[in-house]
Amino acid sequence: MNKYIVEFIGTFFLVLTIGCTVLGSGGIPPLAIGSALMVMIFSGGHISGGHFNPAVTLGVWLRGRCHSKDVLPYMFSQFLGALAAAQLVRLFRKPPSTPLSIDLLPAFAAEFLFSFALVFVVLNVATAKGTAGNSFYGLAIGMTVMVGAFAVGDISGGVFNPAVALSICSLGLVAIKNLWLYLIADFLGGFVAAQTFKIVSKEDAA
Amino acid sequence: MNKYIVEFIGTFFLVLTIGCTVLGSGGIPPLAIGSALMVMIFSGGHISGGHFNPAVTLGVWLRGRCHSKDVLPYMFSQFLGALAAAQLVRLFRKPPSTPLSIDLLPAFAAEFLFSFALVFVVLNVATAKGTAGNSFYGLAIGMTVMVGAFAVGDISGGVFNPAVALSICSLGLVAIKNLWLYLIADFLGGFVAAQTFKIVSKEDAA
Amino acid sequence: MNKYIVEFIGTFFLVLTIGCTVLGSGGIPPLAIGSALMVMIFSGGHISGGHFNPAVTLGVWLRGRCHSKDVLPYMFSQFLGALAAAQLVRLFRKPPSTPLSIDLLPAFAAEFLFSFALVFVVLNVATAKGTAGNSFYGLAIGMTVMVGAFAVGDISGGVFNPAVALSICSLGLVAIKNLWLYLIADFLGGFVAAQTFKIVSKEDAA
Amino acid sequence: MNKYIVEFIGTFFLVLTIGCTVLGSGGIPPLAIGSALMVMIFSGGHISGGHFNPAVTLGVWLRGRCHSKDVLPYMFSQFLGALAAAQLVRLFRKPPSTPLSIDLLPAFAAEFLFSFALVFVVLNVATAKGTAGNSFYGLAIGMTVMVGAFAVGDISGGVFNPAVALSICSLGLVAIKNLWLYLIADFLGGFVAAQTFKIVSKEDAA
Repeated sequence: MNKYIVEFIGTFFLVLTIGCTVLGSGGIPPLAIGSALMVMIFSGGHISGGHFNPAVTLGVWLRGRCHSKDVLPYMFSQFLGALAAAQLVRLFRKPPSTPLSIDLLPAFAAEFLFSFALVFVVLNVATAKGTAGNSFYGLAIGMTVMVGAFAVGDISGGVFNPAVALSICSLGLVAIKNLWLYLIADFLGGFVAAQTFKIVSKEDAA
Repeated sequence: MNKYIVEFIGTFFLVLTIGCTVLGSGGIPPLAIGSALMVMIFSGGHISGGHFNPAVTLGVWLRGRCHSKDVLPYMFSQFLGALAAAQLVRLFRKPPSTPLSIDLLPAFAAEFLFSFALVFVVLNVATAKGTAGNSFYGLAIGMTVMVGAFAVGDISGGVFNPAVALSICSLGLVAIKNLWLYLIADFLGGFVAAQTFKIVSKEDAA
Repeated sequence: MNKYIVEFIGTFFLVLTIGCTVLGSGGIPPLAIGSALMVMIFSGGHISGGHFNPAVTLGVWLRGRCHSKDVLPYMFSQFLGALAAAQLVRLFRKPPSTPLSIDLLPAFAAEFLFSFALVFVVLNVATAKGTAGNSFYGLAIGMTVMVGAFAVGDISGGVFNPAVALSICSLGLVAIKNLWLYLIADFLGGFVAAQTFKIVSKEDAA
Repeated sequence: MNKYIVEFIGTFFLVLTIGCTVLGSGGIPPLAIGSALMVMIFSGGHISGGHFNPAVTLGVWLRGRCHSKDVLPYMFSQFLGALAAAQLVRLFRKPPSTPLSIDLLPAFAAEFLFSFALVFVVLNVATAKGTAGNSFYGLAIGMTVMVGAFAVGDISGGVFNPAVALSICSLGLVAIKNLWLYLIADFLGGFVAAQTFKIVSKEDAA
């Protein structure tokens, strides 16, 4: 149960930061968002693994570091935390009048590529023997999201996270009709990352 | 006594940075402020724990990692350091003519939420067995304040710290009539964070 | 083979980030680019060493920490990853109509100096006995590129990497007629850095 | 001798970055400068201690972690590296037509305060038993300079380093008639920081 609470809290603050910075003015949203993920991983990783992202949970499960019985409760906690935060954002910010306009192919590619990068980084810095005991896992994972948001934020929204996708649909940042794109591209990125990890880290995956 | 001196120094430089960057032009105040907290924690944490914030002291005390006899002297040192810095800021910057205008409900929620996040992060990265010996505690704690300042700085001032609240009231950045809001919301956030930590980290809190 | 795949992946995401941020609007390209290198080093360093740069491979080989049989496959993987990413960038961004205009002498000096700094940092944080077991190697290496890009990005493009040079020539960011400058200056910087490392770290190099 | 070469290299790249970013356009000079110091400390600290600043050398010597015979050669190497970099900056940037205009009292206070903070951080993160073996020393020290540059860069130039002061005088960024202020304030800050460290870290200083 503790793990699920931590997954809720981490995803909640991630989406709260996304909503408040993307809908606010000034600031550097990618830096704030990546750092929000970083601090939540550093504080919750030792309890739940610090996924805060269903695509990460998929990848960690495929790599054998998440119990099968935890997969659905993790994802449920993440979606719940994300939706709760999106509701609360309305207390602080005015939702946008129109959602982000996207081109399907570039947006799909952007989401797939950086979801792959994110889960590839997670598996290597948080589950590999070769990096065991490091103090950089939160920094590496959080800054991967920052990099993706800087690189393709204007192409796809820079989501890389199915729970975030649903929550920002509910806020009107992304059109609900495009939700499928995020669900498929982000989970696919996590799936391919897990397979790639198994290939390049054979001894770890054994 | 050494601990109290360190708490004074850390809070002093935190508030000096807040005053100089928020009242200056250019720069990225949330990055500077979060980093000021980070460097002071990295340099003073091994002596005093590196609280620099009465809400953190409350949370760490509730979690059992601060002697009861230290609580008031810690808070006194923090308030003193913060007020001394606020006085010195006047040597560098012109105080604002009008304080930040706030809406009570969103400001209270913003202060409560990120004070909760701050103390939750502190307890997990600086007092939990699962993260013992890490090299990221200052980074995680400092960047939590940066995230909060980016997310809700324009809503509440992004204070999350009763000593900072008093000092920026004295500088005119926040209206003195609103001081109660920061005191209640920030201590409450620290209190709830300590209870949450005890629930999700049962073995640690035992 | 795993090592070559990791070198491909890391260089691919480095160049993808370069192309998307430099040709995009908004954002802070040096921060994004340095961070992309950082996260790829943190996630791939334990498998391949995390070079992602032929000048780094040269320096690490000269220092005796890269097998001679790996040198060419590493460089080939890096060039391939960089060129693949440059092709993909066209899906997200419009290539520039004119390449960066450079003065040869300052551009050569800028590339030489920061390629030297980059490889000097790599050898000290990733191959020296005195820093063994540290958790900062990716941060130090990635931020060296960020520093160079902030300092001389407008002078030379801030490349410091022969594989990146070729790929951004293919994108039109740098004129193909100037490619030689990057190849010579960047490899020369790596060569001189390796010699300097051997002098200042005698016991390590023994 | 190796130590002196490393002190030369580190101070050289620090001043090269200062000159190129402060005299360039765009960018975030405090972030670039603090990060330049960080990466040089991470790469040279295990050889020379990574001072790159005569005020730091004074503080470390007073704390008993720098041989008396090294003090003058260290400072000489730092001044030499700084002056060499300032000369080279002219290849990349046009020196300013007028130096920074300062008010003596605030500028002196700003330099004293943040030189104190810098040396206090150095002694605690790089020489204290309570932080031995950490992986954050370069981050903490570099970001202290970033914080100071954000906070009081427009008041005093944000120098905190006698070698940097001389070199930017030679570049025309600071008036030569004000050089005394930096020499006195910065060394004084280092001196007071060393005394404070001895008080708050009695067991370390023993």
